[in-house]
Amino acid sequence: MTLFPAEATQRQIARELYAHARDLPLISPHGHVDPALLADDEPFPDPARLFVVPDHYVTRMLASQGIPPARLGVPSVDGSEVETDGRAIWRLLAENWHLFRGTPSRLWTEKVFAEVFGFDKRFGAETADEIYDELSARLAEPEYRPRALFTRFNIEVLATTESPIDDLAVHAKLAADGWGGPGGRVITTFRPDNLVDMEWAGWAERVAALGELTGQDVGTYPGFLAALRARRELFVAAGATSSDHGHPTAATLDLSDADAAVLYRKGLGGAADAADAEAFRAHMLVEFARMSLDDGLVMQLHPGSVRNHNRALHARHGRDVGGDIPSATEYVRALRPLLDRHGDDPRLRIVLYTLDETTFTRELAPLAGGYAALYLGAPWWFLDSPEGLRRFRETVTETAGFYNTAGFVDDTRAFCSIPARHDVARRVDAGFLARLVAEDRLPLDEAAETIADLAYHLPKKVFRLDGPA
Amino acid sequence: MTLFPAEATQRQIARELYAHARDLPLISPHGHVDPALLADDEPFPDPARLFVVPDHYVTRMLASQGIPPARLGVPSVDGSEVETDGRAIWRLLAENWHLFRGTPSRLWTEKVFAEVFGFDKRFGAETADEIYDELSARLAEPEYRPRALFTRFNIEVLATTESPIDDLAVHAKLAADGWGGPGGRVITTFRPDNLVDMEWAGWAERVAALGELTGQDVGTYPGFLAALRARRELFVAAGATSSDHGHPTAATLDLSDADAAVLYRKGLGGAADAADAEAFRAHMLVEFARMSLDDGLVMQLHPGSVRNHNRALHARHGRDVGGDIPSATEYVRALRPLLDRHGDDPRLRIVLYTLDETTFTRELAPLAGGYAALYLGAPWWFLDSPEGLRRFRETVTETAGFYNTAGFVDDTRAFCSIPARHDVARRVDAGFLARLVAEDRLPLDEAAETIADLAYHLPKKVFRLDGPA
Amino acid sequence: MTLFPAEATQRQIARELYAHARDLPLISPHGHVDPALLADDEPFPDPARLFVVPDHYVTRMLASQGIPPARLGVPSVDGSEVETDGRAIWRLLAENWHLFRGTPSRLWTEKVFAEVFGFDKRFGAETADEIYDELSARLAEPEYRPRALFTRFNIEVLATTESPIDDLAVHAKLAADGWGGPGGRVITTFRPDNLVDMEWAGWAERVAALGELTGQDVGTYPGFLAALRARRELFVAAGATSSDHGHPTAATLDLSDADAAVLYRKGLGGAADAADAEAFRAHMLVEFARMSLDDGLVMQLHPGSVRNHNRALHARHGRDVGGDIPSATEYVRALRPLLDRHGDDPRLRIVLYTLDETTFTRELAPLAGGYAALYLGAPWWFLDSPEGLRRFRETVTETAGFYNTAGFVDDTRAFCSIPARHDVARRVDAGFLARLVAEDRLPLDEAAETIADLAYHLPKKVFRLDGPA
Repeated sequence: MTLFPAEATQRQIARELYAHARDLPLISPHGHVDPALLADDEPFPDPARLFVVPDHYVTRMLASQGIPPARLGVPSVDGSEVETDGRAIWRLLAENWHLFRGTPSRLWTEKVFAEVFGFDKRFGAETADEIYDELSARLAEPEYRPRALFTRFNIEVLATTESPIDDLAVHAKLAADGWGGPGGRVITTFRPDNLVDMEWAGWAERVAALGELTGQDVGTYPGFLAALRARRELFVAAGATSSDHGHPTAATLDLSDADAAVLYRKGLGGAADAADAEAFRAHMLVEFARMSLDDGLVMQLHPGSVRNHNRALHARHGRDVGGDIPSATEYVRALRPLLDRHGDDPRLRIVLYTLDETTFTRELAPLAGGYAALYLGAPWWFLDSPEGLRRFRETVTETAGFYNTAGFVDDTRAFCSIPARHDVARRVDAGFLARLVAEDRLPLDEAAETIADLAYHLPKKVFRLDGPA
Repeated sequence: MTLFPAEATQRQIARELYAHARDLPLISPHGHVDPALLADDEPFPDPARLFVVPDHYVTRMLASQGIPPARLGVPSVDGSEVETDGRAIWRLLAENWHLFRGTPSRLWTEKVFAEVFGFDKRFGAETADEIYDELSARLAEPEYRPRALFTRFNIEVLATTESPIDDLAVHAKLAADGWGGPGGRVITTFRPDNLVDMEWAGWAERVAALGELTGQDVGTYPGFLAALRARRELFVAAGATSSDHGHPTAATLDLSDADAAVLYRKGLGGAADAADAEAFRAHMLVEFARMSLDDGLVMQLHPGSVRNHNRALHARHGRDVGGDIPSATEYVRALRPLLDRHGDDPRLRIVLYTLDETTFTRELAPLAGGYAALYLGAPWWFLDSPEGLRRFRETVTETAGFYNTAGFVDDTRAFCSIPARHDVARRVDAGFLARLVAEDRLPLDEAAETIADLAYHLPKKVFRLDGPA
Repeated sequence: MTLFPAEATQRQIARELYAHARDLPLISPHGHVDPALLADDEPFPDPARLFVVPDHYVTRMLASQGIPPARLGVPSVDGSEVETDGRAIWRLLAENWHLFRGTPSRLWTEKVFAEVFGFDKRFGAETADEIYDELSARLAEPEYRPRALFTRFNIEVLATTESPIDDLAVHAKLAADGWGGPGGRVITTFRPDNLVDMEWAGWAERVAALGELTGQDVGTYPGFLAALRARRELFVAAGATSSDHGHPTAATLDLSDADAAVLYRKGLGGAADAADAEAFRAHMLVEFARMSLDDGLVMQLHPGSVRNHNRALHARHGRDVGGDIPSATEYVRALRPLLDRHGDDPRLRIVLYTLDETTFTRELAPLAGGYAALYLGAPWWFLDSPEGLRRFRETVTETAGFYNTAGFVDDTRAFCSIPARHDVARRVDAGFLARLVAEDRLPLDEAAETIADLAYHLPKKVFRLDGPA
């Protein structure tokens, strides 16, 4: 896989630029890998459970052609039966591999086969069994255990996300093993969505759990804030350098303490409507910005996903199985209350992601190119692909430059695909920069410096992974 | 016209891929050609009446530079005079031919001159008369009659669109001549817009006509549904494999029978307001999906056009003369009621079109890549052009792959331009696939299989033109 | 700087096409240069005051990385201190020059260094002082005074924008010097925003000033209209050929005189709310269209900017210092009242700009390709860049052609950057046209004619700078 432009001049320059980024360590401050994977360091299960079952990019595509997730082994939450035979699942994937032509899933998977597992047979119905056996054999070897791969992948730091009510026991084990803690290889991220979203079933119960965990009186709004602050302290102690906020919209709101307390009480009393819930989420972003100014956590904000759009899928298989769909997202008015309060403060760092590319030239690049606190996160989710990455640079750079972006970060549950994803980004950025060089818009030496910044130095710096400020 | 990328490696690959698609028959399941053209098989009138008068791409562009449609012979509905001299109209086009630089209309027209009529003089003021005479001479020859061209164009199947109250007499004649009927060369499409849109002048009268035609009591909502079902049966008997729905928005609504009946009665009573009309249209899409599950008609949905935007044009010349303008279109929330009900059912096929490209990465590709019933239609109308086709593949493929699209279909009233339009699409797809190959993202043999699928096999399969399921 | 495509065939064609545009005079009918600059013809101050202080593209980018505008010498309106040492400001820019990699600001600046000042040392911290000294020395020379540069830049005509209550004294001086007046080199533009926007602080006072200036009774709506007409006459006498309208939205409204008068009185009485103010602005666009039909001024409309988004910046430094952010803009419904009234009238010319690229294929190209009065303005502001210009042609041309666009116009306060901006546009258009030629979509001779039209003939014609109609 070159991914470089076909035109010879640009390809030559791209190759040269890529060489400056290729071997840099991977910075992964926005991951969704299960930390137990690295804490336990058990062998991976069979290939189907590694490559198909947990990867909603893969199960979605098969579902879109009429193959229900149950046949792919996706666990059900309603007790209905699902396929358990790894080889059967694997064959289904292989028979339908043509569906993935032109998709990043195919690129990543083939790259993992070639570069992690060291073979490059073409995947398909004829080779499915052979490849299944080969992969299974490798997965039993010690050098294919998670920690060994982590080291081989040259990952410098990997963050996972945990709710404030997570006890962080897994991260404690990682720290005890010399893998976690501040400055460690595996760190946590403070993700409070399920504590600020009153519309998320079980909210009040989770708030109560937060109170128990911290000993704060979460019956009051100040107690709720104090409890969150207390948990943030412990997350920082477990190595966290950022928080992560996935909201339906980018709305922010700067309420008085009294008004916020009213909403909070309504929520606890079960009397909050959708507008109240939205206002509370919006206000909490400003509260979290305030906390960030104190404890230094970088805020990550990614709005605009309609969660669980496919209700039948959600009913049968629960959350995070591929039923989320992006929707149009407004940032200019939505972020104004937060930016009015803290946008010019360079001590605050907000990394903004989007699923709505139309906002790049119109809203996000002008905002990031105008406020000291804002950085643009890498193309997220559906956009984490060669064309998506290229369009990101083409639409963002002219207004925000390279240095108001946070460099590349992956966003995956699929541990083995992490190096492939970073490599794709490095190649695409090399191609984009090569065009600038070939068109005399940037000297080669500055392009070389830039690609190393995008691949490594920028995410490390923006996410405060370069040590105490 | 190559349309292939200029870069030598990609051009060579594109040429090779194109060879796999070039000679495949044309599948045209979404056309607007008048079926009488093929039923009567009369010679075409003069060149102006073939190339200018009925083509609103052409008359719009001239109007935008101050040449009113009346001077171009566009029939009036208000009795005002219009130009009748074909040669005068033709000269006006020729003198203003520079306006079409860079447009698909120019590409198609020059391609038709060269490939259908066999000459390649440059069109313009100096050659206008000569070309007019040459075209006129050809059009008098038997091999330029519609059926002869149809055969020469290698069209395998062409669908036209008819209202449920059309008597299908023209299609009956086609069937009698061995040209129509199920599996025939010219088939119909069930297009019920003017029977479900209460805001369309004359709605109640058309509903009454539907009642008469079917003998159903359309004074009641169940009678209305029964009448529509009866007409669908006859459309299927006339060869239809799909229905076609052009709505202002993509809204769908899953009302109870009782609630739907209330709206229907309000409409018949003249008491429906705009919201009622929208709700009724939205609900009827879910009804039609239900009918499709029974009779197998593929649903085509193309929302988002503001019809008759130019009121003066509409007042003078009526509908479908170029006064429609796209507007922003929302799909994620709008389609949810329909998808909740039937989206995961692979027996249902919904082909979605859009005039709003911003929805491709954000909404349509994720939806089509997540629901078994959804396919994305080819770039429609203003987007049926080299750049539009290229952007479609670049924005859709990474999330939905190739196989959640319905392949290329044209959307034209301009019979002679059909092969040109398909050829443009095949060339652009060849160029896109060549880039994937040149960048090592897809092996050549799979790209070759893919281009044949996009050009021929996919539309045939998705539109159920490959025989009984 | 070539900016031409890297691929050899296209580069060769682009070079050839560019030669047809390179030396054509510059038409600049939409500028924001201070006319006093050319009326007084004083030497420019130091390099920082020429390149940094007044250029909000530059100060924004530095602010986005935590360097407050006060440190860059941006004048304050609240009396707070700002940097006054030109060299210190210059060094700050030089030390942060990497922030501008990939931005048009960098392209323009380096081009000005090379082509206006004749040196091509790489700008940066090491060369900052040396370049500062070199620039300072040049700026003291007579051939670097504004009028000398104007002549050297080959500017044929430059328009500035003035409020109706401007006394036009500066333009009178220019006329007296043989530089201004109808057909002159420096002309004015009628920009009435601060007289039609009731929400702009001081509106009533400015209306009163308009009354005094014209002797009309602006206490009544007819008097207000008469006063505006009177000022337009004087603007025309000072050389104006266009008016300029920067509104929050594209809304237009065709009220009766009586209804408009009611809004006007509410505004004067301080009783107008936001909806009233929007309605009044919207209606005034239709009034201005009416006036244009009488006096021939071309209307320029650029909606969609959220002004003064950064409140702290606005409080400290006032308007037009980089705190404006684009937002989503709707045109199809918004412009309909105006288009219903006058859209098909080719005597009216409306040049539409946008900051929202998503509207190009969806709304603006179809509208401009359908109404005789509409032309699309060049990519504006954040989009006046190589990628922005390229996307404009790629998204607009297929539906609107080249001749429903108004050719290239710059939009700058930065006098020295005018030739660089035009040159970038000519190069990018050459590259776009070269692709059409290389892909056999346009013959070379027509592409050559087209590039000259885009660069020179079209703006001259559309803005009525080619003499009386």
